[in-house]
Amino acid sequence: MSQTDPLLPALAELVGADGVRSGEAIALLDPGWHPDNLGAGLVVYPRSVEEVAAVVALCHRSRRAVVPHGGLSGLAGGAVSRPGEVALSLRRLDRVLALDPAGATLLVEAGATLEAVQAAVAAHGLDPGIDLAARGSATIGGLIATNAGGIRAFRHGTMRQRVLGLETVLADGTVYSDLAGVLKNNTGYDLKQLFIGAEGTLGIVTRAVLRLEPLQAPAATALLGLPGFDAALALCARLRREHPARLLAVELMERGYFASAERALAAHQGAVGIADCPLYLLIELAADGALDVPEAFAALLGAALDQGLVTDCVLAQSETQRAALWRLREDSDAPGREFADRLHFDVSLPLAQIGPYLGRLRAGLDGLAPGIAVLAYGHFLDGNLHLTLGADEPLVPRHEAVEACVYASLAGLGGSISAEHGIGLDKKAALAAHAPPGKLELMRRIKRALDPEALMNPGKILDTPV
Amino acid sequence: MSQTDPLLPALAELVGADGVRSGEAIALLDPGWHPDNLGAGLVVYPRSVEEVAAVVALCHRSRRAVVPHGGLSGLAGGAVSRPGEVALSLRRLDRVLALDPAGATLLVEAGATLEAVQAAVAAHGLDPGIDLAARGSATIGGLIATNAGGIRAFRHGTMRQRVLGLETVLADGTVYSDLAGVLKNNTGYDLKQLFIGAEGTLGIVTRAVLRLEPLQAPAATALLGLPGFDAALALCARLRREHPARLLAVELMERGYFASAERALAAHQGAVGIADCPLYLLIELAADGALDVPEAFAALLGAALDQGLVTDCVLAQSETQRAALWRLREDSDAPGREFADRLHFDVSLPLAQIGPYLGRLRAGLDGLAPGIAVLAYGHFLDGNLHLTLGADEPLVPRHEAVEACVYASLAGLGGSISAEHGIGLDKKAALAAHAPPGKLELMRRIKRALDPEALMNPGKILDTPV
Repeated sequence: MSQTDPLLPALAELVGADGVRSGEAIALLDPGWHPDNLGAGLVVYPRSVEEVAAVVALCHRSRRAVVPHGGLSGLAGGAVSRPGEVALSLRRLDRVLALDPAGATLLVEAGATLEAVQAAVAAHGLDPGIDLAARGSATIGGLIATNAGGIRAFRHGTMRQRVLGLETVLADGTVYSDLAGVLKNNTGYDLKQLFIGAEGTLGIVTRAVLRLEPLQAPAATALLGLPGFDAALALCARLRREHPARLLAVELMERGYFASAERALAAHQGAVGIADCPLYLLIELAADGALDVPEAFAALLGAALDQGLVTDCVLAQSETQRAALWRLREDSDAPGREFADRLHFDVSLPLAQIGPYLGRLRAGLDGLAPGIAVLAYGHFLDGNLHLTLGADEPLVPRHEAVEACVYASLAGLGGSISAEHGIGLDKKAALAAHAPPGKLELMRRIKRALDPEALMNPGKILDTPV
Repeated sequence: MSQTDPLLPALAELVGADGVRSGEAIALLDPGWHPDNLGAGLVVYPRSVEEVAAVVALCHRSRRAVVPHGGLSGLAGGAVSRPGEVALSLRRLDRVLALDPAGATLLVEAGATLEAVQAAVAAHGLDPGIDLAARGSATIGGLIATNAGGIRAFRHGTMRQRVLGLETVLADGTVYSDLAGVLKNNTGYDLKQLFIGAEGTLGIVTRAVLRLEPLQAPAATALLGLPGFDAALALCARLRREHPARLLAVELMERGYFASAERALAAHQGAVGIADCPLYLLIELAADGALDVPEAFAALLGAALDQGLVTDCVLAQSETQRAALWRLREDSDAPGREFADRLHFDVSLPLAQIGPYLGRLRAGLDGLAPGIAVLAYGHFLDGNLHLTLGADEPLVPRHEAVEACVYASLAGLGGSISAEHGIGLDKKAALAAHAPPGKLELMRRIKRALDPEALMNPGKILDTPV
């Protein structure tokens, strides 16, 4: 379709010949995390909000579906495109437009990467308040469209809480722009909330005003080995009480994940030299003026060791050692590679339920088929568990049964089947199976109200008959 | 209508005879902040979610509009009811249902007051993360429906950021319940965001799961007199850098407001004894473990006095003195009473714009008519200004011109015409005049999608032709 696509001349007129890729040029592009992201065979790269609007309006007139593309690091297939659709990349809208240091806000285009934003505001002692391993590729627009979470959510919320103002191109090419830069703004329905987390199915994010936080430099980073989840809860209660705003990260790695991560990175950085424990927490505390944070942390850890809440610990003594500890957690694609087949999940549940849930999950999987290993890690204080299930027998054919086992108890526990990766294509069936009664029907009503022809990233999150 | 209302028997059957007030019994009820809140002449008091659903379903079948009532402390007329409508009070759904100390969440019914919730969780060292002067009457459901802000928003967000799970009764009486208790929950459109801040026009909040924060005890409270807004910005930049998570409050009072507040409270508590200054900040810092917060604060203030950022200051030496300082700020209905007529506004703008905005506003009002005083106060770090305009000549007849003057420049500055009080009835015209292009049409589409018969709190926020 792409090479002889009748839309090509009109698209090239709107964004310039160098702003359209199709045909053989597609093969030269990086498809990103999902192999089918470039399935449309046609990618448009507008350079301005006006060009985005013009492209979307053209597609609307031509009844062509539009699939927005950011950094293509999404894990749920939200950027997958099919022949006949038009992939619209925001990567050329990547300018940091205006920083307000007094108000601690930033106006930025959707295609800027998180890393670029972090760098731009760090020079002013500020931080976007969100951080995640894909910072180098994930774009602001993608973070907003997927309501990204990451490492700092327990402190500063998910992306939804970072957005003060938003500009979106609607299904018919209209630009809806509400770029207010204030936290308190109760002027009717907060429409931006609809677009945040909608994965591009209601409109395309083009610009945003982000709320910034004071930049906090890490003062102490430690890997702790713990005897179990009860100890982790007790330790975290104390950490939150004593260091509520110095806590930069509390990342979880269960034994299976940690051992596999250490093996995977062995050639690169050797072993950490920590005792074998059921679970590990990677904890980072921020510097705080006159307070001797490393000393306060050491005192807390000393007491926790005495009380048996912590079994062993390694304090990073250098930036190199700190980076090595972080790599164990952030290089999460490596662990589990020793298995012939793997499946990945991203769930959340109330903190106290994590331990019991994992116990029940392992029992359930054992009942299903022996030999399925659960590598668990994630953002502990968000109750956000990432699960890599590995087996030497093929898992994909048993995907449905395994998935049912992973998701079964979450709703009853007050948890979620998709914590931060969203629904996209891959979790549509799971959402349909586990959503609260009435949710899909309400979502369809919203979809029809904003995109009646179902042209915005169709088939993502829900199936919308036109 | 009410005494012979044909719906009375059916309503009494659903909620019991003691759950319906009409006729002369209405005169015995407190109408709350707005005199017309009880205009319907009929109030129903369900005791359970099921009863709320049954009442709404009955009203839907009978094509009767429903006006939800919480603590009736709203300032924009969102609870005003008219003959023929049914006021539905949530005040009997006031139970604190389940506290999860590890997960720091609370399941609570909509009719519980903020004060009751604060008390219930304080016993566990936790705090709802939101606080405002109307804490004794404002209910959780009302706070959610109006996306309340208050004193702590700069730290913990507005009510929108406090809600993890939400249950709502929809226009047809269906209960939509998504009471997940996790921060990360990306499972399709985040529908609860629609109901938060919608002032009851899309559904009635019945239960919520709130996110809690560690309770922070105040360690130092001071009233500072400053030479102007530049000094306030410089001081706050330092406070945010050095005490980001110990800052409990940074409340603003301009000279005119402060002087009037002191006079109004003179008989009650005497003068504070602080120098006459263009503006005042009431600052409160939290205790923090080993750190000597009063000493750190005194050092910061000493430096600020030396640099001329602060002209004078009074540190509260007792709980009585602390309460007296807070009363100056929270008893905000008293200041301005010396004027024959008053108008109130609630706006927000980027921090650095507050000073210039007030200068321009005063010039604009002088151009309109001399002798209009501007008493400005509010939540400084949110850029949230409350304005009491006072004059000895009638202001109400000039309301439109005055309002135009107050709102004119806000959108251009990235601010908001309604920071935390919402739109209700009173600000509908202002919203229509100042909303971003396309916003009202998008809001109408959402309203039609969720409440096609326009039975939920009709005429609030926007006029919806049925």
